[in-house]
Amino acid sequence: MYEGVVQDLIDELGRLPGVGPKSAQRIAFHLLQADSIDVKRLVEVLTEVKAKVRFCETCGNVAESEQCRICADPRRDNTAICVVEEPKDVVAIERTREFRGRYHVLGGAISPIDGVGPDDLRIKELMTRLASAEVTEIIIATDPNLEGEATASYLARFLRPMGLRVTRLASGLPVGGDLEYADEVTLGRAFEGRRLLDV
Amino acid sequence: MYEGVVQDLIDELGRLPGVGPKSAQRIAFHLLQADSIDVKRLVEVLTEVKAKVRFCETCGNVAESEQCRICADPRRDNTAICVVEEPKDVVAIERTREFRGRYHVLGGAISPIDGVGPDDLRIKELMTRLASAEVTEIIIATDPNLEGEATASYLARFLRPMGLRVTRLASGLPVGGDLEYADEVTLGRAFEGRRLLDV
Repeated sequence: MYEGVVQDLIDELGRLPGVGPKSAQRIAFHLLQADSIDVKRLVEVLTEVKAKVRFCETCGNVAESEQCRICADPRRDNTAICVVEEPKDVVAIERTREFRGRYHVLGGAISPIDGVGPDDLRIKELMTRLASAEVTEIIIATDPNLEGEATASYLARFLRPMGLRVTRLASGLPVGGDLEYADEVTLGRAFEGRRLLDV
Repeated sequence: MYEGVVQDLIDELGRLPGVGPKSAQRIAFHLLQADSIDVKRLVEVLTEVKAKVRFCETCGNVAESEQCRICADPRRDNTAICVVEEPKDVVAIERTREFRGRYHVLGGAISPIDGVGPDDLRIKELMTRLASAEVTEIIIATDPNLEGEATASYLARFLRPMGLRVTRLASGLPVGGDLEYADEVTLGRAFEGRRLLDV
């Protein structure tokens, strides 16, 4: 509907995740009316990100050199590895300040429907890391959904025979949530994982 | 939370309209993992859009030359001008195929709260166009909200003394909508604007 390059921009923006045709149009007009310098900054950072950012050779997290910040940090605990699906999960866990060990980013979860099998994930790299000993606990922090659970079970089956302590993040009611709005699976998990109150 | 340039990208994306911090992160990781060629295409089209696209000297619509496609089209009706707020409104109206006249894009609506007064809109340019006669009807198609209505009233006060037929798009129930879900203002307008049924 738009003239040449404006439509091209709307099309390109519409390819981004979570950006529908209406949002793409809104962003495009915003950029059209924005100062050239703002658009230039976006262009520069896009170019830079593709040139600079790679994935950590050890854990698979995003990094600006061979190793990510966390792998390069000598103060982190080498005995625990937290296994996550995506780099953004590392950031989410770091924000809690609960964990001082290392991470391993799988790059997804097992999902037969999307054609993602164990060989498509960075599981071999995890095994290589474990060969160098020191690690005693693997915390599996894949998403609490079908794919994440399947991946967790798959990993546990491999890791337990190696004499490692394999743990999984607790499922239960979200803090600040309302019991009556919890779905039955979450509520069931909360029951299953109930703990003794220390009085 | 992220390393250098990844955070810069998330920040830049978060400045776009309708893109919150979570979406910005999601888009950034999508781009990080996307093929370099896809990101390059986005970068190119962003650069091109800022270099090529300008605003039509006559109507203020987006254009790739001095005049937009519609102003440059000799087959359009010169006697009617449809006044809209934004270029995207032109596209919305063109899609209906109801209107074969010309457009005038104001570049916004009067909004004291946002500090937008009549002088910030392309009203002077509209007056200049009207001076060259031929035009007999002005259809005011600003948004049916407070700002759009204020702008419509303001324009009508200027245009009526010029002997022009000044019309406003009908307000009423959206086609395919459900009467019980219509808000009271819309329903009130629908009553006010009721028409005799031809039986």
